[in-house]
Amino acid sequence: MNQLDALSLLNSVKEGSLTPEQALLRLRLEPFEDLGYAKVDHHRGLRQGAAEVIYGAGKTPEQIAGIVAAMLQHEERNILITRMSAEAATVVSEHCDLEYHPIPRVGLVRRVEEVTASGSIAVVSGGTSDLAVCEEAALTAEALGNRVERIYDVGVAGLHRLLAHLDRLMEAKVIIAVAGMEGALASVVGGLADCPVIAVPTSVGYGASFHGLSALLSMLNSCASGVSVVNIDNGFGAGYLASMINHMGGTTK
Amino acid sequence: MNQLDALSLLNSVKEGSLTPEQALLRLRLEPFEDLGYAKVDHHRGLRQGAAEVIYGAGKTPEQIAGIVAAMLQHEERNILITRMSAEAATVVSEHCDLEYHPIPRVGLVRRVEEVTASGSIAVVSGGTSDLAVCEEAALTAEALGNRVERIYDVGVAGLHRLLAHLDRLMEAKVIIAVAGMEGALASVVGGLADCPVIAVPTSVGYGASFHGLSALLSMLNSCASGVSVVNIDNGFGAGYLASMINHMGGTTK
Amino acid sequence: MNQLDALSLLNSVKEGSLTPEQALLRLRLEPFEDLGYAKVDHHRGLRQGAAEVIYGAGKTPEQIAGIVAAMLQHEERNILITRMSAEAATVVSEHCDLEYHPIPRVGLVRRVEEVTASGSIAVVSGGTSDLAVCEEAALTAEALGNRVERIYDVGVAGLHRLLAHLDRLMEAKVIIAVAGMEGALASVVGGLADCPVIAVPTSVGYGASFHGLSALLSMLNSCASGVSVVNIDNGFGAGYLASMINHMGGTTK
Amino acid sequence: MNQLDALSLLNSVKEGSLTPEQALLRLRLEPFEDLGYAKVDHHRGLRQGAAEVIYGAGKTPEQIAGIVAAMLQHEERNILITRMSAEAATVVSEHCDLEYHPIPRVGLVRRVEEVTASGSIAVVSGGTSDLAVCEEAALTAEALGNRVERIYDVGVAGLHRLLAHLDRLMEAKVIIAVAGMEGALASVVGGLADCPVIAVPTSVGYGASFHGLSALLSMLNSCASGVSVVNIDNGFGAGYLASMINHMGGTTK
Amino acid sequence: MNQLDALSLLNSVKEGSLTPEQALLRLRLEPFEDLGYAKVDHHRGLRQGAAEVIYGAGKTPEQIAGIVAAMLQHEERNILITRMSAEAATVVSEHCDLEYHPIPRVGLVRRVEEVTASGSIAVVSGGTSDLAVCEEAALTAEALGNRVERIYDVGVAGLHRLLAHLDRLMEAKVIIAVAGMEGALASVVGGLADCPVIAVPTSVGYGASFHGLSALLSMLNSCASGVSVVNIDNGFGAGYLASMINHMGGTTK
Amino acid sequence: MNQLDALSLLNSVKEGSLTPEQALLRLRLEPFEDLGYAKVDHHRGLRQGAAEVIYGAGKTPEQIAGIVAAMLQHEERNILITRMSAEAATVVSEHCDLEYHPIPRVGLVRRVEEVTASGSIAVVSGGTSDLAVCEEAALTAEALGNRVERIYDVGVAGLHRLLAHLDRLMEAKVIIAVAGMEGALASVVGGLADCPVIAVPTSVGYGASFHGLSALLSMLNSCASGVSVVNIDNGFGAGYLASMINHMGGTTK
Amino acid sequence: MNQLDALSLLNSVKEGSLTPEQALLRLRLEPFEDLGYAKVDHHRGLRQGAAEVIYGAGKTPEQIAGIVAAMLQHEERNILITRMSAEAATVVSEHCDLEYHPIPRVGLVRRVEEVTASGSIAVVSGGTSDLAVCEEAALTAEALGNRVERIYDVGVAGLHRLLAHLDRLMEAKVIIAVAGMEGALASVVGGLADCPVIAVPTSVGYGASFHGLSALLSMLNSCASGVSVVNIDNGFGAGYLASMINHMGGTTK
Amino acid sequence: MNQLDALSLLNSVKEGSLTPEQALLRLRLEPFEDLGYAKVDHHRGLRQGAAEVIYGAGKTPEQIAGIVAAMLQHEERNILITRMSAEAATVVSEHCDLEYHPIPRVGLVRRVEEVTASGSIAVVSGGTSDLAVCEEAALTAEALGNRVERIYDVGVAGLHRLLAHLDRLMEAKVIIAVAGMEGALASVVGGLADCPVIAVPTSVGYGASFHGLSALLSMLNSCASGVSVVNIDNGFGAGYLASMINHMGGTTK
Repeated sequence: MNQLDALSLLNSVKEGSLTPEQALLRLRLEPFEDLGYAKVDHHRGLRQGAAEVIYGAGKTPEQIAGIVAAMLQHEERNILITRMSAEAATVVSEHCDLEYHPIPRVGLVRRVEEVTASGSIAVVSGGTSDLAVCEEAALTAEALGNRVERIYDVGVAGLHRLLAHLDRLMEAKVIIAVAGMEGALASVVGGLADCPVIAVPTSVGYGASFHGLSALLSMLNSCASGVSVVNIDNGFGAGYLASMINHMGGTTK
Repeated sequence: MNQLDALSLLNSVKEGSLTPEQALLRLRLEPFEDLGYAKVDHHRGLRQGAAEVIYGAGKTPEQIAGIVAAMLQHEERNILITRMSAEAATVVSEHCDLEYHPIPRVGLVRRVEEVTASGSIAVVSGGTSDLAVCEEAALTAEALGNRVERIYDVGVAGLHRLLAHLDRLMEAKVIIAVAGMEGALASVVGGLADCPVIAVPTSVGYGASFHGLSALLSMLNSCASGVSVVNIDNGFGAGYLASMINHMGGTTK
Repeated sequence: MNQLDALSLLNSVKEGSLTPEQALLRLRLEPFEDLGYAKVDHHRGLRQGAAEVIYGAGKTPEQIAGIVAAMLQHEERNILITRMSAEAATVVSEHCDLEYHPIPRVGLVRRVEEVTASGSIAVVSGGTSDLAVCEEAALTAEALGNRVERIYDVGVAGLHRLLAHLDRLMEAKVIIAVAGMEGALASVVGGLADCPVIAVPTSVGYGASFHGLSALLSMLNSCASGVSVVNIDNGFGAGYLASMINHMGGTTK
Repeated sequence: MNQLDALSLLNSVKEGSLTPEQALLRLRLEPFEDLGYAKVDHHRGLRQGAAEVIYGAGKTPEQIAGIVAAMLQHEERNILITRMSAEAATVVSEHCDLEYHPIPRVGLVRRVEEVTASGSIAVVSGGTSDLAVCEEAALTAEALGNRVERIYDVGVAGLHRLLAHLDRLMEAKVIIAVAGMEGALASVVGGLADCPVIAVPTSVGYGASFHGLSALLSMLNSCASGVSVVNIDNGFGAGYLASMINHMGGTTK
Repeated sequence: MNQLDALSLLNSVKEGSLTPEQALLRLRLEPFEDLGYAKVDHHRGLRQGAAEVIYGAGKTPEQIAGIVAAMLQHEERNILITRMSAEAATVVSEHCDLEYHPIPRVGLVRRVEEVTASGSIAVVSGGTSDLAVCEEAALTAEALGNRVERIYDVGVAGLHRLLAHLDRLMEAKVIIAVAGMEGALASVVGGLADCPVIAVPTSVGYGASFHGLSALLSMLNSCASGVSVVNIDNGFGAGYLASMINHMGGTTK
Repeated sequence: MNQLDALSLLNSVKEGSLTPEQALLRLRLEPFEDLGYAKVDHHRGLRQGAAEVIYGAGKTPEQIAGIVAAMLQHEERNILITRMSAEAATVVSEHCDLEYHPIPRVGLVRRVEEVTASGSIAVVSGGTSDLAVCEEAALTAEALGNRVERIYDVGVAGLHRLLAHLDRLMEAKVIIAVAGMEGALASVVGGLADCPVIAVPTSVGYGASFHGLSALLSMLNSCASGVSVVNIDNGFGAGYLASMINHMGGTTK
Repeated sequence: MNQLDALSLLNSVKEGSLTPEQALLRLRLEPFEDLGYAKVDHHRGLRQGAAEVIYGAGKTPEQIAGIVAAMLQHEERNILITRMSAEAATVVSEHCDLEYHPIPRVGLVRRVEEVTASGSIAVVSGGTSDLAVCEEAALTAEALGNRVERIYDVGVAGLHRLLAHLDRLMEAKVIIAVAGMEGALASVVGGLADCPVIAVPTSVGYGASFHGLSALLSMLNSCASGVSVVNIDNGFGAGYLASMINHMGGTTK
Repeated sequence: MNQLDALSLLNSVKEGSLTPEQALLRLRLEPFEDLGYAKVDHHRGLRQGAAEVIYGAGKTPEQIAGIVAAMLQHEERNILITRMSAEAATVVSEHCDLEYHPIPRVGLVRRVEEVTASGSIAVVSGGTSDLAVCEEAALTAEALGNRVERIYDVGVAGLHRLLAHLDRLMEAKVIIAVAGMEGALASVVGGLADCPVIAVPTSVGYGASFHGLSALLSMLNSCASGVSVVNIDNGFGAGYLASMINHMGGTTK
């Protein structure tokens, strides 16, 4: 219920077609949606190109398949499933058309390839070992209607490789910098670029990387302005936020 | 030096007005600026409304005054000084017109009040004790040409106060959520809003807040999409990034 | 042995039916139980509806079955077994009537469904992934004679869902707030409710959740009054304490 | 606004004394208070014996004095000020009658000594060095209308002293166990008593106490049932929660 | 009250000189001391050469002076005061004869120089900066009747100095190894010696010493057998335990 | 080479039966053993009842069998193998007579049951889940010639059980207190007993026990005097040190 | 492209054989290599004896085999593969001649045994359990053209064994000290030797070793001068750096 | 005593000018120095240009002055005093000619400006706030006879500044990379340079820098080969080690 609906409800009270008691009941039952306070989840699809996201971790293959089935009945498109096991992919693909990416463990149902933002998002990483997190970010951003530039294996220990891709980097509207170990990539990229940089620490590494803590602290302490950080391995969060910002910079419609 | 300049330099070599040795020297001296790789620092003022930022911590009052004097000679406007002690403010204000805010310890020289972004930034906080960090963020954003909505003292433990300000919150293009202690504000705001939320953990608190660690971890783990995090107490970083994003959403010129 | 028994023993000495040496021996053998100092474990059943709790972790199926058998010989009812593996459940159910809940890994023997407290306990959680801990808490509270309201999947990132259940929340005498990741639920619930809130951090999450540390710190720093915290994943502890408090608010007998 | 008020508002719409638009405005302006969702702060005094609590840390003496003055104009009684500096006490006592306790840094204005709960709260501690936290808890509980038993200096390293006070301990409806260093007191008390135990770790100690971390972890891991934990040094939180529980066990009115 | 006393009390009941009620009262009042359970504090002086220890931290000079005065009235000798500030020393020395050591901040009242153990205790340290902790240990051990060998400034980075003192080291019955920074001394000494080694990590150091954490972990992981660890900077604890062990190896009486 | 040997060597030089160069060579080759500096490992068996200890972790079954075989050729008795896998036990028992304890994973070869110390060692623990560590300590102590009292399952949350065993506890010359979770047992035992207490934190527990960190910190912060700590789960270290101290209190020979 | 090449390119522009646009393109394509900024990776083989290193962790056997094949086509010699699984070794050895070391999981292809540095590197460790890390360091150093002295099992708890090898230790140009648990070896070796010591903490250990944290902190705090530290378990990094330093001290060519 | 001395001593025994007992005594008194095992501290001056280093922290001005005076009597030159307070500098300069640097708090006595190594050491830092640590390193290296290139304020967030100094960086034999906050400088420099890089994390920063922990972890995880790390803020250690390595690359004599 939006504000117009609320006004209409109050008008019904005025006109006598609803008793005050009935109106109170409806106001109590739908406290926020009615009044337009909270964001209306099922409208998100119209705005950003993806109907809904399913966080696959901790859900059984059957649960995921059930949620997907329910969504398909509501004609949802571009359903994104993250942290999806290969087993879950097998089960879901029996019921519908699933595009499954095994390394980032991402599934896509009823993929509509449509770019809705005018700018592009660059996903930069320092090594091939961060590939899973990179692709979770990239596939998320693509599912949400963004053009994505993948610039992988350009770590700070081999600066010339990063600098060789400067043009593609400078053209992006938002950059997602993915790095494990020392996480220096975010600072270097943040210093070179003039757009928001979303840093994603990864748990890749050993010893004093402490499962991503080193990269996380490093990124939080970045001396470069314009850098912010999401949770360790949270490729989806970075892709989602990047899409949000990228769409602010202009849409194709 | 941009690419056109580089081309012009190479043409000068071709034409003989520069020897190859002279050209090499110039290419070496300005390795990146020449080739348009790095962002050109002294052009930033034109784009975002602030000439330069001085990080005051660890600098003597005299050093700060010296940097400000040098900038003024280059006709810089809107000079922002963060982490500026009261002593430094006294010294600097002897030499130029300084607008000093003692709680966030922010100084502004040659303030030009001009809004260059069409949208607004909301700074939200849960209590009065986070005021210093909030104002560092808000003053930074204002100095960079943004309209700022201050929504303070609306913590999650008194949800009705936050909800009473929902309209102002929903109108913002970017939200900066500042919170110490448990840092839950970022998640709640991130769940309500439909725009990027920059979370700033603060070191306010005691005991198991561990100087901001609790709020930091809480914000990194936010279940709400669209939330990213900057360093503990880094109001400036949040304000700078918010301005960057806000200007992507449209400028007044 | 309570104080009356001690007095009776001393009277026996006075009367000569016991020698001082015999009395001393008995006092030594039952140093505390005799004097009413410690809580008498086998009386707990009368007061709170559950005879005894078996902590299943680290015990073999055979050990658990043995303890249960011993209890059944003493006519115990409502035996609660926590952290019980499926294997243990199989073994125990061969010897007696076991009600086994696989997700929270809780077993119940000789369940007597009887509500002894007049108020109710609400178990609130932010997502389906915390279900195991929620149910450990809920089943514990039910086994101890409480009415339990389950309000799951009402996380702070979707505040409207939480607010839609406010009535049920406000009616509870005690609330158990279960949350992983950022743990903000405890603060939000603590701010809304006017009764004791027992916060249970869970190890659900990834990256900077650090196996529940993030939620734990967040909950300890809750700005809301009336919130206290138990160990990570300690659903049993929360259910037990909630029952203790709920029975203080009135019993049905 | 409670539910009756909301009904009355809707009746006004029905009767035409309010337009639907005016009603909508009022519903928007007071989203929660109107509908009885949130706890009404200014009614708390009637229920629990204390009007309001002022958290003194981070507030200037003048700010505290101002808040107190505003409260006194609303005829508030039993105003509790925690973390109040001696300077603040001096300033406030110039304007009103202040009872100031320097060790726990607690101030009380318009103290009304009235016990509203039928049971008592025991505050137990292991050493004299935890006195400040103990008294913050005890004074808070007293201000909220509870009878408080102070059982100090009964640490686990001298068990006989603790056992000598068992009678007083066993009579309490709620126990607050305050301990720094190893925090073992909470487990020992939790094992002896048959009522809720609120454990308060303190930052007292040195070396591997790590400013209260050792006691905090120890208390969270307590093997005794019925124990929950609040933040390090949070005597107020423990006192408030203890009062809440104690009043559930019966009031004097 | 020991077992004989308890038997005598029961005999009094038998004989009628005490009523059962009177006997019960006495058993309740002295629950442990009566039955010989707990160690009787005021007998400790006879056994170990020191009457009582006062932990000076967190006590006012006046409180310390008061405790000392009370002890002197009971004719106590060899009163040891640890963590005693210079101010406290000044106040106490006005009332009695105080031997004050400013670096370890240890005070001694009514010092009786008497060696009661036949063996000796070696206190070993790696540098002069650990002197305060070393001396707290050494003075404690001396006050408790031990002969102490001080072997300072023999760190592992200059192994020849340590080895030059091997004879004195090998003659000790117990060794206290005091070290900050990397704490390697405990392992080296533990490997050389054939007696119990009590390791005391100190908070001396900077950077990654993390206030003693590095030395603490290092000592806990010692590969040498016979090494155990006390709290960071806990010279007193080491001295006390060393004395306990040293007296087991034979006394001079 | 002991001091006599060194003197004899120097005499040989004097007498001309050795050239100075030959003497120098010998001094260089056996730098410490020659001069009696280091403890001579193969004499340890004579003094303490155990020839040698094999740390089984990280060694293959074949390596362990090889070491045992070599020892047996030197007529070693009472060979103790810790952290020995069941596979290793199977392999070793094919070659010699092995007494294997599967829970503490301890193996004993050529066990000579002989008590060489006059006092006894008590091993105390709070729960059955610490059994493996307890038995590693107890078997180590027994192999080294000590009488061991096992007092298990006497945790602080059920104080009456601990107190019921006070007599056995008070008779010990050394106590080993084993505890996971909150580790309070060491403080309580340390407060009751009047002998050295060796605390062994265990990794048993979950959540905020952080794999033994909670118990470790708790034990290091023990308020009781006479308590020292070994590494988490280091039952062997505790047993070895306890034996060392126990033999100081008198031997049976 | 080095500076001479750049000059030559500019001369080509001057002479007209290259247009300025073509020159710009070449400068952009090889931004650093052209100008002699970055180290030229494919020249490293000439200088240090190893063509390239493959970090095997996170790569499939097929990926490793592919990289090796590509290198062999470029006639690379002395290819070093670290963190190589046994499976990968099986796959790779099907395609080329592989020397595989299973304990350190190191593979070598086209091994050329040639010593290019005049000095030697000593690898010292305290126990056999650190063997894998030691050998990763030693094999790396050997592959890079160094003579390596292996001095294993000379921990600080048995100092005489370490001292017995002093001659070999003192002859090394660089020492790699490998140790888990308390990490004291680095300090002891650093104190004895007069050359750079590279300390490698290992994750070997249990309990409070916290997966190498204890050794890491200990080594960082080393009191001995000339000690620096690499990541936990980073044998390769230590071997590489040692080779770099060793070659500075003189080469055989 | 070196090996020649030892031989001479043994010859004296042979010749009868020393008795075997006298020889033994001398061997015992100087166990290592005699036999050439340990590095002879007072010879260090000849080799590396600095006589001795005094660690000023924790020493009184008088103690430092005393040590300096003793050294001057032994004709020591180039005495280096680190962590020297301004007060200590004042006291020492009363007795001798002191060159004092207040920012790094370094003092030099009898400075002999002489370069003994043929190569140079570069000290690189990312900001002016790390100046104190940089200068401690640089002054240490200079006092030990090295030419030092200072390349300050070239952080990774402004990469062009770092690259503009590449020539000076590439010419160094050893690089000391000093950085606080995210510590990325070490990786970037390590990737560019082809010589050993000694990384010094600093405690400069705020929030999640956690007093240097972030930079420390980042540097330990450096992806670049040839990087090793010293303790936080340990400029002296880096300068000392750099000098050691630099002298290996050739001396001027």
